[in-house]
Amino acid sequence: MANVSDITVSAFINCLSAFLFLVAFAILRLQPMNDRVYFPKWYIKGIRENPSTAGSFVKHFLNLDVRMYIRLLNWVPAALRMPEPELIEHAGLDSAVYIRIYLLGLKIFVPIALLAFGVLVPVNFTGGNFNIMRLSMKDLTFGEIDKFSISNVPPASKRLAAHIIMAYVFTFWTCYILYKEYKIVTDMRLHFLASQSRRPDQFTVLVTNVPSDPDESISQHVEHFFRVNHPDQYLTHKVVYNANKLAKMVSQKKDLHNRLIYYTNKYERKPIRRPTTKTGFWGLWGKKIDAINYYTEEIEKLSKQEIVERERVIGDPEAVVPAAFVSFRSRWGAAVCAQTQQTRNPTRWLTTWAPEPRDVYWNNLAIPFVELNVRRFATAVAMFGLIFCFIVPITIVQTLANIESINKYLPFLKPLIDRGSLKALIQGFLPGIVLKIFLLVLPMILMEISKIEGHVAVSDLEARSAGKFHLFLLVNVFLGSIVAGTALQQLKEFLNKSASDIPKTVGVSVPMKATFFITYIMVDGWAGVAAEILRIVPLILYHLKNILLVKTERDRDEAMDPGSLLWPITEPRLQLYFLLGLVYSTITPILLPFIIVFFAFAYLIFRHQIINVYHQKYESAASFWPDVHRRILIGLIISQFTLLGLLSTKQAANSTPVLIVLPVLTFWFHKVCKNRFESAFRKFPLQDAMIKDTLERVTEPQLNLKDYLKDAYTHPVFRGGVVELTDIDEEEGDGYHLVATKRSHMGSKAGTRDGSSEEMTGIFAV
Amino acid sequence: MANVSDITVSAFINCLSAFLFLVAFAILRLQPMNDRVYFPKWYIKGIRENPSTAGSFVKHFLNLDVRMYIRLLNWVPAALRMPEPELIEHAGLDSAVYIRIYLLGLKIFVPIALLAFGVLVPVNFTGGNFNIMRLSMKDLTFGEIDKFSISNVPPASKRLAAHIIMAYVFTFWTCYILYKEYKIVTDMRLHFLASQSRRPDQFTVLVTNVPSDPDESISQHVEHFFRVNHPDQYLTHKVVYNANKLAKMVSQKKDLHNRLIYYTNKYERKPIRRPTTKTGFWGLWGKKIDAINYYTEEIEKLSKQEIVERERVIGDPEAVVPAAFVSFRSRWGAAVCAQTQQTRNPTRWLTTWAPEPRDVYWNNLAIPFVELNVRRFATAVAMFGLIFCFIVPITIVQTLANIESINKYLPFLKPLIDRGSLKALIQGFLPGIVLKIFLLVLPMILMEISKIEGHVAVSDLEARSAGKFHLFLLVNVFLGSIVAGTALQQLKEFLNKSASDIPKTVGVSVPMKATFFITYIMVDGWAGVAAEILRIVPLILYHLKNILLVKTERDRDEAMDPGSLLWPITEPRLQLYFLLGLVYSTITPILLPFIIVFFAFAYLIFRHQIINVYHQKYESAASFWPDVHRRILIGLIISQFTLLGLLSTKQAANSTPVLIVLPVLTFWFHKVCKNRFESAFRKFPLQDAMIKDTLERVTEPQLNLKDYLKDAYTHPVFRGGVVELTDIDEEEGDGYHLVATKRSHMGSKAGTRDGSSEEMTGIFAV
Repeated sequence: MANVSDITVSAFINCLSAFLFLVAFAILRLQPMNDRVYFPKWYIKGIRENPSTAGSFVKHFLNLDVRMYIRLLNWVPAALRMPEPELIEHAGLDSAVYIRIYLLGLKIFVPIALLAFGVLVPVNFTGGNFNIMRLSMKDLTFGEIDKFSISNVPPASKRLAAHIIMAYVFTFWTCYILYKEYKIVTDMRLHFLASQSRRPDQFTVLVTNVPSDPDESISQHVEHFFRVNHPDQYLTHKVVYNANKLAKMVSQKKDLHNRLIYYTNKYERKPIRRPTTKTGFWGLWGKKIDAINYYTEEIEKLSKQEIVERERVIGDPEAVVPAAFVSFRSRWGAAVCAQTQQTRNPTRWLTTWAPEPRDVYWNNLAIPFVELNVRRFATAVAMFGLIFCFIVPITIVQTLANIESINKYLPFLKPLIDRGSLKALIQGFLPGIVLKIFLLVLPMILMEISKIEGHVAVSDLEARSAGKFHLFLLVNVFLGSIVAGTALQQLKEFLNKSASDIPKTVGVSVPMKATFFITYIMVDGWAGVAAEILRIVPLILYHLKNILLVKTERDRDEAMDPGSLLWPITEPRLQLYFLLGLVYSTITPILLPFIIVFFAFAYLIFRHQIINVYHQKYESAASFWPDVHRRILIGLIISQFTLLGLLSTKQAANSTPVLIVLPVLTFWFHKVCKNRFESAFRKFPLQDAMIKDTLERVTEPQLNLKDYLKDAYTHPVFRGGVVELTDIDEEEGDGYHLVATKRSHMGSKAGTRDGSSEEMTGIFAV
Repeated sequence: MANVSDITVSAFINCLSAFLFLVAFAILRLQPMNDRVYFPKWYIKGIRENPSTAGSFVKHFLNLDVRMYIRLLNWVPAALRMPEPELIEHAGLDSAVYIRIYLLGLKIFVPIALLAFGVLVPVNFTGGNFNIMRLSMKDLTFGEIDKFSISNVPPASKRLAAHIIMAYVFTFWTCYILYKEYKIVTDMRLHFLASQSRRPDQFTVLVTNVPSDPDESISQHVEHFFRVNHPDQYLTHKVVYNANKLAKMVSQKKDLHNRLIYYTNKYERKPIRRPTTKTGFWGLWGKKIDAINYYTEEIEKLSKQEIVERERVIGDPEAVVPAAFVSFRSRWGAAVCAQTQQTRNPTRWLTTWAPEPRDVYWNNLAIPFVELNVRRFATAVAMFGLIFCFIVPITIVQTLANIESINKYLPFLKPLIDRGSLKALIQGFLPGIVLKIFLLVLPMILMEISKIEGHVAVSDLEARSAGKFHLFLLVNVFLGSIVAGTALQQLKEFLNKSASDIPKTVGVSVPMKATFFITYIMVDGWAGVAAEILRIVPLILYHLKNILLVKTERDRDEAMDPGSLLWPITEPRLQLYFLLGLVYSTITPILLPFIIVFFAFAYLIFRHQIINVYHQKYESAASFWPDVHRRILIGLIISQFTLLGLLSTKQAANSTPVLIVLPVLTFWFHKVCKNRFESAFRKFPLQDAMIKDTLERVTEPQLNLKDYLKDAYTHPVFRGGVVELTDIDEEEGDGYHLVATKRSHMGSKAGTRDGSSEEMTGIFAV
């Protein structure tokens, strides 16, 4: 068990590193050459231009104005100043709602902490169990922190009633705040959706599992089906091409293009010698040749192949996958089609509301129904394996964290460790960091698993991998840290234990792990969040690209990587703090201030980042909120069972019936919230669709919707290509030609995600 | 433990009683005076008339044709002869699909029994554990039946592999048959729905939770809302009145009317003395008065009150509940409205497909959303209490069944019991009967709980109470019989046991309870089903009514009670046989023939009853099938866990990983079936609606749908009443007047369920 001095060291280290990160940020962000790293959002918006090029050459890169450095923290009020409606306008609803989660944490935990410090800490501190225990068994070392925790209350003490009452108070408070927040977010979402301007996905439905027909092509079949079954509403449709090979070629070409630019730049700087390269892998071996000529030829070759492939895809009926984007004359028609079942066979003609064009995950549109079932089953098995086997490295970390066991298993390290400060370092810093590194790799694996599951929208993919990540953190980080041993061992143990023993096992270990989690919060929550604002990786990458690849202003725009709020990763990690806060609120309230500091600090940092840096790839209008809500409630229920288990070992068995009511009530609360709010996040009310339709009919009677929707759902590789898809109908308005010309103008950017999404915005603005 | 001779006695008793029931039925059904008890279905259909009144007076009541009595079982081929399509036509899809469950039982268990007797019985019989055990501990008495069961295989024997392989074979076979059956039933349902003639519920949606509006009445509010949001499709609507008080008056009046007829009949038969009655409760005390005059006056008084109340309900805006039946121009429009969300607030303007008019449960239409949530929570708690407390009497029965414990606790009964035959009677007959009586009361309680839950259709109510009953049987009859003690004790014990110990506890007890369940099958399944065909209660009631109340031919029609297939009661009971068959298929296969006899016999009996007797109150087009399917799968999973637990006590621990795969695969199979088939039972494909609409438009272009729908969803008490509801619109076609006149002609029957449903059929046939 770590004692108070260990924690103090850890706190000092973490605070120091957080402070250093902040200082570094404050200095770096003032340098004009870093401007695109720390304020990319404003460049994308077109509001910020390059820093003024007047003045000396040095001034172009460094900020020499000393006065600016004095006010190190002047970004803080700036981050807080922007009011919420403006923030939604500026960064989108997803981001604005996301940072509300941090606020939610403050709203829940500040009053809880006040109450806990007012009531539970005095009750625990005067409990006196600590002294008794120390007398009875000397080898058991309690940390001083335990004096403030429930461990200091002797068994069967009447004082435990305070903890039970507080558990009730905390539950009701959490539920009350959650209900209020759900209501606010729902209103925000509905208001946002209602005030949104016209978008292609409002009129469009994604149809998958189109059955094959011997007499008709897929395109004809889709048209006939919807003309018959939605006669008044059907407008047009777009089939989906299997353009994966083409997309690969486009990205290959882009890569070659980058190399060509690199060598051209090199030659321009040193025009004495033409740069050479080797033909082998990554230019590492093979015949030596002239680099510029080589890449120019390669690009030409690939361009020709690309054109052939492009024509093959469009001409070949085999390249059409059995899915289509069907557009309707009105939002009402699309809402109807998305919410209804089309045919008797529920595995065919499946309709869902189309994802935003940027949000479509094209590779998964063609998966047949049966295969989808098999895939889901396979991924469930894979997830089970992952959760119960990934733990091995984490267990090693847990062993490392335990100085005593190092001394036991690696005695030669003993003299090294016994130096006080190193010992503190190992206990206070290392475990958190190692755990963190493992957890960084994981989301990518989970994302791949979610892709195999076959979801058709990037937002779905992210929501699903967030769910998996949350489960993983729950089992492996929370349970894995509390109960020793691998998850598989735990599972075996839990299966052999009675249902009432499981909360006991967890409950008994929880107070002993408080110091570990305090350390974890400081490393991951304090220093980690401070590192986020520094953006070290994008900073380095930007300058590398700037030196090697950038020629024009547009290249510089591309080199700039704003990144985005990776909510499928940050949200489940965030949930761990809710879980810890709720679990320890009644058991070791001393942990609460650490959590509150985290929430406040992270709120500040992320608000700044959202305003100045991140650029979201799509907008889901806060559709993740039901997940957030549910996961906090899962944390609440876990905390209730933990307390129940702990108290039943404290010879307060009578408390069980009183405490078992809490999870039942909490579960019911979940059901009520689900009934009351969730449909606003999943369904599409007809009334709202009708209002928007009517309004539009009055204000824009001349609107040509068909032209507007024409190319919204074209596969990104066809965007801005030379070859036009004329699959659906031949008539083309003048407006359309204009757009097409614009797009072919930006041809070279085709295939990159950012490029296409920017372009999308362009089209929408038309 | 009962031995083979006990079972033989029980089998003899039960076979004898079944035979006696069948003989009694064969004789009684030939008597003309019983004709309406045993063939009511044909009277309702209007195909069968009274038996010819020619011949002597005696012949009118008794059948004296001796030849008819010789062929006792000639109803059997008649019951089997009717082909399925004709059966659907004759009795409806619900009934036709219901008896397929018995066939399904045969399809599953006949091959399983053949395999089990071919493989497992020899393996068990030659196991030899029995002899070893007998030598080692003499006090443990094994029944001879255990020789054929898995108990006779010694621990850690290689023979157990046969049981594991068979568990796989049985699981795959069951799933295969279930999948095939689900597909057949789905096709039958879809075909039935597609070939159905026009019905009001095809065009109608039930809207609940209509918000109140200060400026508009509920009727106006509904009309405006749907005119705006379904402009092309909205046709008309019907508000719902809170006519519960009125309905009570109508039924009171009917009761008084019956008494009046009784006394009039009495007077006519003995015109010497006018019959008298007393004014108090049930005519038992109070002032003595002339009965005929009294009831005539009372009826008149009530009639006046009824007219006043009728006018109050129609005139008073307070009597309108916030719910309405909204009808659309086409089936497509109704399908769209039923499947979509109307407004942002998911607690308002809730739309569901309207139940068939006969199927509406009027009392529950006005429950607000929040109250519904509270009610569901309360009923869940009540169900928990019921399941874990109702067991006390059943435990007493279980104790009774144990002769040894009677001798112990009630020693004075010993000499009585020791007489061999009585002992066998107690063990073989009594426990089943007592259990049965308890179970007869239960469904009514469960139905009341379901009503409190607030479902709006009788079919929903029945489906929900069936689910509750199934849960109850599972916990209390199956688990309660296997593990001794009350359910509450069990729960406590299970909570204190590890997850892997629970299947062990159950698994070890299962083989020991085989004889008990064999007895149960014979009592409940053999004799009980035979009693069903005799219809003792309806027979007695019919003759009582015939003597006391019948004056005219129409009275006789009303006295005839065809009853109906009480599937919410019979189906869960039936599931117990599937469960027993699956659980014992690998453990004590000797039980299987008893189950097969049950399924075959019950199939025969119920097919006969469906053809000749039952008259279903509504038609749900086999919407119960997903429940049936799911419950059989629950039984399958329980059987897999039981075997797993049993084998793990047989020191065959390596079998656990092999067997744990089975429930996982079964659960996945459930998911696949749910995805593949369930929506055909829950949703309404637009394509089918469109086909029917188009067809109708072509064949009946002149159809006035508004007139057709006009009175379909009027509260039954207003049916055929004098006062007409002219709430929605004033224009009335000629056709409508015709219907109204017809209905008022049948005025006196208003308010009775049967009366109104018959009338409905009349209206539909127009």
